[in-house]
Amino acid sequence: MSSKPRIVFIVSDGTGITAETFSQSILAQFELPFRQIRMPFINTVDKAHQAVREINEYAKSSGLEPIVFTTLVDSEVNAIVSEANCVMMDMFQTFIVPLEQALGVKSTHAIGRFHNNADTESYKNRIEAINFSLAHDDGQSNQNLADADVILVGVSRSGKTPTSLYLAMQYGLKSANYPLIPDDFERNQMPSDLMPFRKKLFGLTIDPMRLSEIRNERRPGSNYAKIENCRYEVSAAEAMMRKQAIPWLSTTNKSIEEIATTILQEINPDRSNY
Amino acid sequence: MSSKPRIVFIVSDGTGITAETFSQSILAQFELPFRQIRMPFINTVDKAHQAVREINEYAKSSGLEPIVFTTLVDSEVNAIVSEANCVMMDMFQTFIVPLEQALGVKSTHAIGRFHNNADTESYKNRIEAINFSLAHDDGQSNQNLADADVILVGVSRSGKTPTSLYLAMQYGLKSANYPLIPDDFERNQMPSDLMPFRKKLFGLTIDPMRLSEIRNERRPGSNYAKIENCRYEVSAAEAMMRKQAIPWLSTTNKSIEEIATTILQEINPDRSNY
Repeated sequence: MSSKPRIVFIVSDGTGITAETFSQSILAQFELPFRQIRMPFINTVDKAHQAVREINEYAKSSGLEPIVFTTLVDSEVNAIVSEANCVMMDMFQTFIVPLEQALGVKSTHAIGRFHNNADTESYKNRIEAINFSLAHDDGQSNQNLADADVILVGVSRSGKTPTSLYLAMQYGLKSANYPLIPDDFERNQMPSDLMPFRKKLFGLTIDPMRLSEIRNERRPGSNYAKIENCRYEVSAAEAMMRKQAIPWLSTTNKSIEEIATTILQEINPDRSNY
Repeated sequence: MSSKPRIVFIVSDGTGITAETFSQSILAQFELPFRQIRMPFINTVDKAHQAVREINEYAKSSGLEPIVFTTLVDSEVNAIVSEANCVMMDMFQTFIVPLEQALGVKSTHAIGRFHNNADTESYKNRIEAINFSLAHDDGQSNQNLADADVILVGVSRSGKTPTSLYLAMQYGLKSANYPLIPDDFERNQMPSDLMPFRKKLFGLTIDPMRLSEIRNERRPGSNYAKIENCRYEVSAAEAMMRKQAIPWLSTTNKSIEEIATTILQEINPDRSNY
């Protein structure tokens, strides 16, 4: 088996980002090396012909048909790209055709009807949420916490910041985050700013060994990074979350997406469309 | 036609976030109301049976088969869910089977082989990039700019912050951003901190009318938001980008994903796997 990566094109009339992420998860099922090349904004006949030329060149020079994932709404553009010398995975037609049958209506074949478009209310909410989460990162502000959808708490480096930003960026949720620090543990109380908003709190914790590793990368040899200190902080934080009956999860070995998904399940049983 | 939304389930053994985003873009092709319900972490036989019960209950109570998008790697789990009373869109098998044929190898059917997993090098890079972008938001720091993959410049509210964070979060790119302010326009020069890194600069501009709207939401009636001032700032910023031969784009009516994709095409012609 050659170690040369198999070329995979992602041809989209939009950004192709979702198709790229999706094809990555599919390709991860094969123990072969791949190289993904995204071709975004292929939304005219000319660009379609250009894409086909590039794909065919790769096919010729490598002697192997490239794999091509497409999401092309326009029938004419799609027809051109589907003539390329490749293994075609049509992510659009494959689902549109059976959906048209099941729903009993024709699809609009309109480009750019996607939820991410810049003029929509949900898009504005998303930008507003990002600004909110930035302004409320790491306990920077106790203003407008009443507007928060969720307030993450946890020791330093437990994953609060990336999770907050992800919740804002992906779901338009206003997510604040507050560090739990030794002062709080000595008083054995949540930061007093947060007490009026107890129902919005969600705790993140982390395995002390992993925490110590992460902190050591930032501040090698510091007391902050020492395993004893990490054990103390984590156990004090967890005790406090238990006492206050705050829902919490361990972020150890979890991706941002997994943490965010678990939080959404907990805080939003009724808003299950998140 | 009823205005009651058609129920769409997304059943995944992971977070289901990619499948959710993908199904949204497919459903946007139909002029019908939908309600998406994500069922993440369906990775055991028990959870699969529970998911089927929920789907069947919706089918019964609404009298309509729900639409179900699945990404389930485990064959047993997938077999159970596929027995649900629904219109099934199998996003996994649909592509795995022809790919196995084309590649001449079997897929591993291993759960969690996705690139987002928390232990990988690329995941660490992503977290590091988020921290970098946060520390270098809005010209907060001129430290370590040599490490930046890209430095966005533009007038206040031209879209720099969300774009920086998105580039970090989605692509692990270290993205700094610097505001262009009236002081810079008076001197008719880029901020001097940035001069050593001219090749990393990428400009964002925006239609002055749109800019004025956005600024008015933040600071109603301010001089900052006045259309005359927005016209002046935008034209001065664009003149400066032209003079310095910095690549730039207009963010007006573009989503964060579209802005990020365009930047990647410009700055990374060789790293086309972004």
